[in-house]
This record gives sequence, structure tokens and C-alpha cells, in this order.
Amino acid sequence: MRTFPDENFLLPNGAAERLYHEYAKDMPIFDYHSHLPVGQIREDAHFQNITQLWLYGDHYKWRAMRACGLPEELVSGVPNAAGDRERFEAWAKVVPQTVGNPLYHWTHLELRRYFGVNDLLSPKTAGEIYDRCAAELAQPGFSVRSIIRRSGVSVVCTTDDPTDDLEGHAALSKESWGCRVYPTWRPDRALAANDAGVLNAWIDRLEAASGKSVSTYASFLEALRARHDFFHEHGCRLSDYGIERPYAAPCAGAAAAFEKVRSGTSLCGGELEEYRSAILHDLLTLDADAGWTQQLHFGARRNNNSRAFALRGPDTGYDSIGQFPIGDALTALFDRLDSEGKLTRTIIYSLNPNDHDMIASIAGSFMGETPGKIQLGTAWWYNDHKDGMNRQFSALASIGLISRFVGMLTDSRSFLSYPRHEYFRRLLCARFGTEMENGELPCDFDHIGGIVRDICFNNAVNYFGMELPEPGGDKHEQ
Amino acid sequence: MRTFPDENFLLPNGAAERLYHEYAKDMPIFDYHSHLPVGQIREDAHFQNITQLWLYGDHYKWRAMRACGLPEELVSGVPNAAGDRERFEAWAKVVPQTVGNPLYHWTHLELRRYFGVNDLLSPKTAGEIYDRCAAELAQPGFSVRSIIRRSGVSVVCTTDDPTDDLEGHAALSKESWGCRVYPTWRPDRALAANDAGVLNAWIDRLEAASGKSVSTYASFLEALRARHDFFHEHGCRLSDYGIERPYAAPCAGAAAAFEKVRSGTSLCGGELEEYRSAILHDLLTLDADAGWTQQLHFGARRNNNSRAFALRGPDTGYDSIGQFPIGDALTALFDRLDSEGKLTRTIIYSLNPNDHDMIASIAGSFMGETPGKIQLGTAWWYNDHKDGMNRQFSALASIGLISRFVGMLTDSRSFLSYPRHEYFRRLLCARFGTEMENGELPCDFDHIGGIVRDICFNNAVNYFGMELPEPGGDKHEQ
Amino acid sequence: MRTFPDENFLLPNGAAERLYHEYAKDMPIFDYHSHLPVGQIREDAHFQNITQLWLYGDHYKWRAMRACGLPEELVSGVPNAAGDRERFEAWAKVVPQTVGNPLYHWTHLELRRYFGVNDLLSPKTAGEIYDRCAAELAQPGFSVRSIIRRSGVSVVCTTDDPTDDLEGHAALSKESWGCRVYPTWRPDRALAANDAGVLNAWIDRLEAASGKSVSTYASFLEALRARHDFFHEHGCRLSDYGIERPYAAPCAGAAAAFEKVRSGTSLCGGELEEYRSAILHDLLTLDADAGWTQQLHFGARRNNNSRAFALRGPDTGYDSIGQFPIGDALTALFDRLDSEGKLTRTIIYSLNPNDHDMIASIAGSFMGETPGKIQLGTAWWYNDHKDGMNRQFSALASIGLISRFVGMLTDSRSFLSYPRHEYFRRLLCARFGTEMENGELPCDFDHIGGIVRDICFNNAVNYFGMELPEPGGDKHEQ
Repeated sequence: MRTFPDENFLLPNGAAERLYHEYAKDMPIFDYHSHLPVGQIREDAHFQNITQLWLYGDHYKWRAMRACGLPEELVSGVPNAAGDRERFEAWAKVVPQTVGNPLYHWTHLELRRYFGVNDLLSPKTAGEIYDRCAAELAQPGFSVRSIIRRSGVSVVCTTDDPTDDLEGHAALSKESWGCRVYPTWRPDRALAANDAGVLNAWIDRLEAASGKSVSTYASFLEALRARHDFFHEHGCRLSDYGIERPYAAPCAGAAAAFEKVRSGTSLCGGELEEYRSAILHDLLTLDADAGWTQQLHFGARRNNNSRAFALRGPDTGYDSIGQFPIGDALTALFDRLDSEGKLTRTIIYSLNPNDHDMIASIAGSFMGETPGKIQLGTAWWYNDHKDGMNRQFSALASIGLISRFVGMLTDSRSFLSYPRHEYFRRLLCARFGTEMENGELPCDFDHIGGIVRDICFNNAVNYFGMELPEPGGDKHEQ
Repeated sequence: MRTFPDENFLLPNGAAERLYHEYAKDMPIFDYHSHLPVGQIREDAHFQNITQLWLYGDHYKWRAMRACGLPEELVSGVPNAAGDRERFEAWAKVVPQTVGNPLYHWTHLELRRYFGVNDLLSPKTAGEIYDRCAAELAQPGFSVRSIIRRSGVSVVCTTDDPTDDLEGHAALSKESWGCRVYPTWRPDRALAANDAGVLNAWIDRLEAASGKSVSTYASFLEALRARHDFFHEHGCRLSDYGIERPYAAPCAGAAAAFEKVRSGTSLCGGELEEYRSAILHDLLTLDADAGWTQQLHFGARRNNNSRAFALRGPDTGYDSIGQFPIGDALTALFDRLDSEGKLTRTIIYSLNPNDHDMIASIAGSFMGETPGKIQLGTAWWYNDHKDGMNRQFSALASIGLISRFVGMLTDSRSFLSYPRHEYFRRLLCARFGTEMENGELPCDFDHIGGIVRDICFNNAVNYFGMELPEPGGDKHEQ
Repeated sequence: MRTFPDENFLLPNGAAERLYHEYAKDMPIFDYHSHLPVGQIREDAHFQNITQLWLYGDHYKWRAMRACGLPEELVSGVPNAAGDRERFEAWAKVVPQTVGNPLYHWTHLELRRYFGVNDLLSPKTAGEIYDRCAAELAQPGFSVRSIIRRSGVSVVCTTDDPTDDLEGHAALSKESWGCRVYPTWRPDRALAANDAGVLNAWIDRLEAASGKSVSTYASFLEALRARHDFFHEHGCRLSDYGIERPYAAPCAGAAAAFEKVRSGTSLCGGELEEYRSAILHDLLTLDADAGWTQQLHFGARRNNNSRAFALRGPDTGYDSIGQFPIGDALTALFDRLDSEGKLTRTIIYSLNPNDHDMIASIAGSFMGETPGKIQLGTAWWYNDHKDGMNRQFSALASIGLISRFVGMLTDSRSFLSYPRHEYFRRLLCARFGTEMENGELPCDFDHIGGIVRDICFNNAVNYFGMELPEPGGDKHEQ
């Protein structure tokens, strides 16, 4: 019986071990999708204790704590929070109950990789681990940038609203510290015509940011284009759309619908569908014109629990996998863009794993000049676990080409989430290594190891076309 | 090569073996969902031969026999039945063709565990096995209660109509024989407003049982509440709803719709949806008020074959997995109940395995005081096999917490179905044991074995809150 | 580490090896569904190089090449084609990138089995392999019929339009060369009432072929029945329907709708649904009357890419898995046919693997006299890979009876695709063999090996009821 987690964690055989240790492990990380706060990177912030890093914002952990019946002062801390130590102890009580969930693995990988803590977290070890982490966090090696550097991260893409001033990014772009940080254009609010109040408040901010008055649909697009240009100037090459499902209705009434919502009336039904179809199409066209890559995140049903939403707002652990029909609209949308010569590189994520095979097959109908132009994205959110990743690997490999895959991202708000890349890489090497051992792939480490390296890093570099940090930039430290 | 089925059946390694033999095997069974006939338990009935136990009512076996092209006199025996021995011989001919299906495993586990028959069933062995089983069944150890006791069953929940007089339960509750038998409230008929004849005939029985006249929707609820109270007095703490999909439409017109159906007009379309949404909500509210646990069974398409239905009625092997959209309505229903403080402990089963991940993620949005308050239920019916159980384990573990799982049930009409618990426990130990062997979980048998025991029994005890049999009650025998 | 691909490729243990080598390998092939051109079989055609066989028509390969960003002259060659050698070299560049995809396995199995090429295909080996294959193809052992014979094929069913004169089949039926070739009735065009032009052009051909004038729906059916009889006379016992989803609406308006489309107006909405429901039902009734087997292929979304379709037409690699609701209509259609005594043996394929379990459970509701009367078909198209086949095995075995399965088909346009049967058989033996090794099945090779042989060949022989080639017919060669 092997020890959890030893150095060959998740690696079932010699070929997998060799692929991981000799090919995957030391590749840099291209973290093309995260929710890291750029301000903390800029300030090179420090944290006082691990509760701040782990429990202030991680709704994965909150959900596990709720599933154990814990009260909210120990969970989200909203409306009232217990003390940091007490909250950590609550989490420590939950951890042994998370066996089988990726939280169990992530928790111990993070303790081990960043803090050198080899003990398993439990009520018995909680106090000592809390103190040890606090002591470590006070060290210089635990500033935000140090954590990023120690994690081998070469590029970080944050997630940003089009009205953001990108000041943090501008400042960071002048520094050379071993990692490049880029903004990502995430214009979800532009689709919020179901709530005229929300959309108009956002357009007000957009007007301020762009210096353009927005009264018509055409002027709305102009303001968006101005901000798109502004993001481009700040190094952005990547957009992201978090939408329930793709929209691809005929758009004839979109301009009129926009004026209606601009004058204060929320849209619904066919009018809303037309508007969303138009603005989504036009935003994707902006991306194509700028030569960016776009990401489409589909299939989440959000804010399921009204009582909790009233208290805690969005992104607090009350979302679920949805069950939306996405195939017809996604195909129609791609076909329209492709016909217009406006379909740029695209990564598609559906929260519902039932969609994987279909998406991989749709992607294959719209390939083009760039290798792997349309991609089934890595296992997202509720799929980000061993079985979920293996399922995504299977769909991508069997229906498309896993060799062209741009690989893993963290999708996290926490600076300690980089071991998710390690997790991904181990599973990737497990898959390829097992096929080698079984004689389903040639015993050619140059060949297969090369593909592993491509998926870990090289494919992303080539696909996204963003500048890497200057060599030597990471010599600042250690 | 290992022998089928040896004592380590389904256990792939040492850790799995130890978990099963030292932790799982001897835990009592809390069979919280079955279709056992309470009358036969009360009478402590005997059977004359194994055909009566196996082939009189098991539509799983009937389907396999039909798939081999056998005529109905050997299968359901409706309209005409061959003799019991002949029917058993027909089944024996089919068994070797069921390899890969759980029937093959169940059949041999039942022969082995109850009758000590180690031979494999086939045309060659059929005669001898039939005779041996008949001889065994004549022994006192084969009364219904003896079978239940020998199976280690601590609690049995039957499935009962609200109009049932629960006489059998009342009588049984006065005896102490090592097992507690509780009724389950299953008011499916209350939703049958698509057929005014069916609904009104049932309401007539409800009036008789409750002593309350039902003319309005409000009086209907009163009569239901009276019966709910009656069930509660008879120890019921569990409800069950067998519905195609959840209903969660606005309910303003429900009272009027009820009066329409009460006056003899069947409902359809939006009116039916409104009515069903209202009555489902109000029934679930009764459960919450009484502090019960509720079960929701979704996703079956029933009585597919009209020709067979006309001859044989429901539950004769002509149902299938459905393809219903359930996510939006389930979320809306839970949100409404939760907002009203009326969402009690709930177990959700969908017959369509594509729904597992979604359900696990919805459950996580409505957790509360009780650990594992909302549960993805165990693999149901067409999913009740090795791959199906593993799929359910994966969804529950990866998206929720398998440690809080209330585990297995039999869902059977047969007193010989308890080896399905053994089957489940072996697969559960296989999963955990394999993760221990692979270094994905710590080699800590106290920890993991404790979770196994919780899933086998302890979680159900804590979750359902029903009284267990008095200790020593099972000493009556052996 | 094992060598790829050795003689025990895909066989993970001794029992699997024995099942494959002693039971499966030498069974003849009953290829009941292919797209082979009958003309080339009749002429016993030769090919000049492997590009003609591999790249002139294989959209699986084209999709992989496009996913690597290759230009169309190297891919489909439409509108302009590079030279055959150059196209082969392009494919050789792509092959190492297809690891994990069945193309990687198929490619090397075909090189090995037909050309004795044991090297892996890559840019380095491309030139030599191209030349070697060209030299081999010039040999007599590489005529089309020789390839078929060498592959152990006993029966080939082609796919044919009802207006086809079946001349090739008529000629072939007079020869005895070791393999029987049968036509398959594929009347998809009869459903194309969404495009009056397409449907009427086809009906013109139907009139010519049948010698019957078609003005009313009744006369349409008469012409179809005449052709159905004609196909029957030419040995056809099998139909095939390639439709998005089943149609089962009430059909009262179908005759009027037909006259409308016949007079030049395309149908849509409910009218189209009614028409399709009627014609599908009536075509399936023809099959039942003739005692044929029918195949239903559901769930493809076709011609996704308009730009490519304009250039390259259908079946060029721009189709995808669809997301159609099929359960209710399929059940209703079967129920109607069954009630009328007109449901004949049927094999159902859905391109969306999410449908497998549901289909297996629906099939079980309509069984009859023939063993395995209604079948979940083998993993189709985008599912035709290791994980996809295992998934289909699991659904069929767990919910139905895998022992009654009629097994594999090639579904290919290429004469070199028979190793897909080898692939299937290896995976089948891997599944059974692993269960034997693990003690989940008895160590009884007669029993399990017999079932393997049934699935490889015997079940198809019994199920389809077509005549086999005369013994000795394959002695013509070698």
C-alpha cells in the first residue's frame, strides 16, 4: 500500500512516473484563466493566516462545510464570522469527511507544497498546522509574487470587467519579476438586458470609462470597441463569456430592443433572445477583429438559493450544473461567424459533462489555420476532479486531438491553487503512461513526453500568442 | 484466475478486502426503501418453491427472459402460466445468457447466501437446485422473518398508500422480533389529475380512510394531513414520490383546477402543471412540518407497451429510463420550500444517470443543519449494477461528500434481495480500498473503515431518526 | 512495458488473450452495415496507392488533419488537391499527433494487417511506407475482393437508395467468390419534405425506377412498396434510416401534406412532423411485412459548416453529435408499431452516447419472439473508439443482455476498415476476460468463449437470417 500523498501520487506505473517527473513536472505554468485579484499581485500582498487564504472566499470549501451541517459563522462568515482560528478548526473537522472529493487532495497538496506540512489535517493536527502556516506566511517567501514564482507560473491571466481601468495591469507591465500578468475581457454584463437597472448602471460606467455616450446599439458597440482597444493596448489577448447557453437567434430587432432597455424597460422572451444573440455575436466579432482567443463558459445555473443570495450575494456556493440545450445554438453561432470570416480561436467549457462529446464533435467542424483552433476546454468547476478530468481527456482524445490541447488553468481566487496544475499533469501522465505500459501507445518517451510538454505549456504559448516573461526575470529570487 | 463468486468477490485488493470483511460485512442493514408486502411479514409467511420468490413478481428477470425470446407463460405467466418447475427451468436456461448483467450476480449470491447452493444455475443444474431450494424453504429458517433476521436487517420501510389502514404495521409494532418495520407515505395518486376517474376513485378511498369529506382543494389537504398524522402515529417518518419530473409552476389556479377534476374533468397542459406543482409543494410541506425525510424518484417513462399493459398492468417490465428536463423545476421547488423554511431532508433519485452530477450540485445549494441534508440517492433500478453504482459513487464523492451518504436500499418486492446490500458494500469497499492501495487516501483503516460503516448503517440511523429494534430483540433465533 | 501493437494489443490478461485468440479471432465477419461501393466489388478494383484508399474519402482523417491546421489541398483536396504522395506525407505528419484517438490504432493495424508494415507512420517513415504500399497494391492479393476475403468477411451489406437499379448486386449474386454482398434499403430521401425540390427530384427517380406514377401519398407508398419488393428480390433483408430523431406525431394530415410538397411547397413545423411521422411509420411497416431487420440511426447534426458545405457537400467531416430528445417519440413509435403487430427486429444507434442507457431500457420494453429483438446498436461513428465501445458494452450488458448482441459493423467507405472488427473483438474479450480473471464471471471458457463467438458472428447470422456464402466458396484464392 502506498502512502498518501507520496511523490508518485496519482501515477500508477513506471511510464506515468517517468512522463511526470522527466517531462511534465518542471514545465512552467501558463495560467490562462484565473480570478486572482490583480491588486494583491501589484502590492505583493502578505496574508496573516491560512484562513484568509483558504476560507475567506473559497465556495468549494464552504459547500463541503455546509454539507457537514456547520453554521454559517464558521463557513462563509456572512452575516457574522467566527474568528479565523475557529473557522480553520471547523474546516479541519470537515477535511477527513471530504475523502473522495478533490478538496481532500488539494488541501494536502497545498499544505505540503507551500508549507512543508506533511501531516494530514484533522481536528488533532489543526492547531499546530494553523500556527505553523501563520509563521510561514510571515516569511518573505510568502508574498503573493513569491508564491506565484515558486509555483513556476510564467503567465497569469486575470478576469476583468470592460469598465476596469486596468491600472494594476499597467503598473505590473512595467515590472520584470518573472511572471507576466494579462487582463481578460469579460463583458458578461453587456448581456444583462433582462434587468434594465443592472445593464444601465453598467453602461453608465462604460460611458465613463470609454468617454463615449451610449444611446443607440451602434454607440454601445462603439464604446465597447473603445474599451476592447484599451484592453488590447494593455496586453489583453483573451476574452471570456460566462453565459447560461449560446444565443443565436435572428437579430433584426436587437437595436430597437437595446433602446427599449436603455430607456429602462427590462427585456424578456424573444426580444431578450434577439438582443443577446446580437450582442454576443458582435462581441465575438470584436475578438476576431483583434485576433484574440475567446472562451465560452456555458451551463451553470446560478444563485439557486434565494435566501442565501439575499444574505451573501453571488459566487458563495449556491450554483449548480444546468441542463441547457446548447448544441443547435452553438453550431449556428459558429457557422455564422465562420461564414463571415469572424470565428477566432475559441475554447468551450460546459459545466454539464454530458455535453463534452458533443462539443468535441462540434469543434471539429470549425477547425482552421491554427492547430486546435476550436477546443473543448479543460474540466471546469464541478468537473475539476479525477473522474471529471479523465472524462474530459477521453472526449477530447477520442473525438478530437488531445495533442493540441492547451491544457490546464486554475480558475481560482486563491494564490495557493497552483497544485491543481500538478494534479492535472499527474492525471495526464497517468493516462498516457498507462497506455504506454499497456502497449496502446509506442514506448517512445520523446514522442509522448513531447506531447505531454506541449499540453502542459507549449501549446498554450503557441495558441494564445502572448509574450512570455523575459528570461532571467525570475532570478530575483532564490 | 479467481473463482466466481469467492469470498472476495468484487474486492480487487487487500485494502478492499479488509474494509469489507472487518468494517462493512457485519453492519446491520437499514433498508429504508422497499416494496416488501407487510402482510407476509406479519404472517411470517413461507414459500413452497423458489419460483414463487423469484419469478412471480420480478420484472427484472422477466425482461431478461423476454430478451431471450421466451413466451409469456414462462415469463410473467400472464394471462396463462406454466407450472412453477417449468418456469424455473426456463429461468435457468436464461441465467447463463445474463453474464454481465447484475441478475447473474444476484442470482448466484442469493442461491449461495440463503440456500448454500454453490453450483452455478444452468439447465444442467436446474432440477437439483429447484428441489434443494424447495426442501430448504420448508424449514423454519425460511419464514419471512427468519430470512430478514438472517440477512442482518435492522429496519425495513415498506411503501404504502395514504389510504392504507396500516393494520399490518400496527400489529408488527407490538412485537419484538429483532427488526422494526415502518410504513412509507407514498401519495403519488394525489398527482393523477390527468385522469379524473383515477384521482376521484382514490379520493373516495381517502375520504373513507380519513373520515373527511373532500370537495375543495383545502379539504383535500385536510384529509391528506389527517392521514399524514395517522402515518406519523404509526411510526412513519419517510415519504416517497414517484413522479416523472419535479413540478414547480406558479400555483394560483390550483384550487380551481382541483374542483374541475373533482367534478369529473381530467386536466392537461398548464392546468395540470399548476395543479401538480401545488399539490407536490403542499405534500412536501406536510413532510417538513412533521420533520420527516422525503424521497423523490424521477425520470421513469412508464407503461411503454400498450399491448402488454392491457394484459399485465403496471410494474411488469415495460418501463424505461426517461429523458425529462428536471434541473430548473427541481431548483425552483427547493428554493421555494427553503425560502418558506419548509425544505426537510430529501433524497433525490433520477432514473437517468445523466442527471447524477447535476443533482449532486443542486443538492449542495440547499444544505442545512443536518449533515448531508439533501442527498443524491443510491443508483436506482436500471442503474443498480456495478457500473451504475460506481457512477453514482463518483458523482456523489466528486461533487458532494460521499462520507455523508445514507447508502443502500433494496427497492425490492422479494425477501431474497438483501444480497444487493452485500453487492453495494463490496463495491463501496472496492472504491475506497483501491484509493488506499493507490495512495490516493491515507492507509488509515480507522478513518476510512469508519466512513464505510457510516455509509453502511450509521448515517441512515442518524439521518432518518427512526427507532431501532431493542437490543436483544434478535435473539429469538439462532 | 509492452510493444505497440503486439499480438495481445488491448488484451490486459491471460483470460482475455485466450478468449481472443481461441474464440474470437478466427470467426468470420458479418458486416451488416457498410458504405462500400458495390461497383468496385463487382469490378474487383485495384488501387494505385494508399492515398486513394485512405485519404480520398475518409472524413475521420480529414478532421484530424484540419485539427492540426492543414490546408484543404492536403486534406479533402477540394476544390484543389495536392498530389497523392504529398497528401500521404501530410497525413504521416498528423499521425503522431493522433495518439489517444482511434485513428492512431486503426492506421497502424491497417498497415500491419494488410501491408506487413510494422514501422510506425511518421514523417520519417512516410516515403518508404508509401512506396511499399504502392508496390503491394499492385499485387493480385490487393484486389478489392481479395482484401475482403483476406479479412475473413462472410457477408457485406452495402447502403443503397431505393431508386438504385442494384445491377452490381444482381451481377455479384451470380458469382461465388466466398462472400455474399447484399443491398440495404435506405430511404432517407423520402423524409426530405422540408425541401420540396429535393424530395420531388427523388420522387421523379422513384417513378422511373418503379414504373409507377406518384401523385398522392397512397401512390407514393405503392411506388415505395414496389421498390421494397425489388430490393427483397435482390436479397435485401435490412433497412436503414438516418434521421435526426424519431417522429411519432399523429398523422391525420400526412396525405394532404404530401400533396402540398408534391405540388412544390416545402413543409415545416407541425405539417413536416406529421408527414415524417406518417412516412416513417409506413416505411417501417413495409419492413415488418417483409420480415426484414431495420436500423435506426439517430442524433447526428449534419452539415454544420455552410462555407465548407458549399465547397465540399455532405459527408466531408462537418457533422457533429446532436442533442435531440428521442425517448418519447421512439417509445411512441415502437408502441404504435407493436400494437399493430408491425414491429420487426430493430437496431437503434444514437450518436449521442448519453442516450445509450435510455435506449437499452426502451429496447427491453418491446422484446418478442426473436432473441434480442430490439437492440442497442454498437458504438457508432464518434463513439467508435475504446472508451465509446466500453460504454456501449456497459449499457447493453447492465441493462439488457450483451449475450444477444449482434456485434460490430464497419460503417466505412474503405476496404481497409476491417481491423475495426479486430479492435471490437479485442475490447470485447478484454471485458469478458477481465471479469473472468477478477472472479466476476466463472472460469468457463466454453461458456464465455461461446458467447464471444455468438457476438462476433453467430448472433448476426441467426438474427438477420440472410444466406451465407456456400462453403468452399472462399477456396478460389490462397
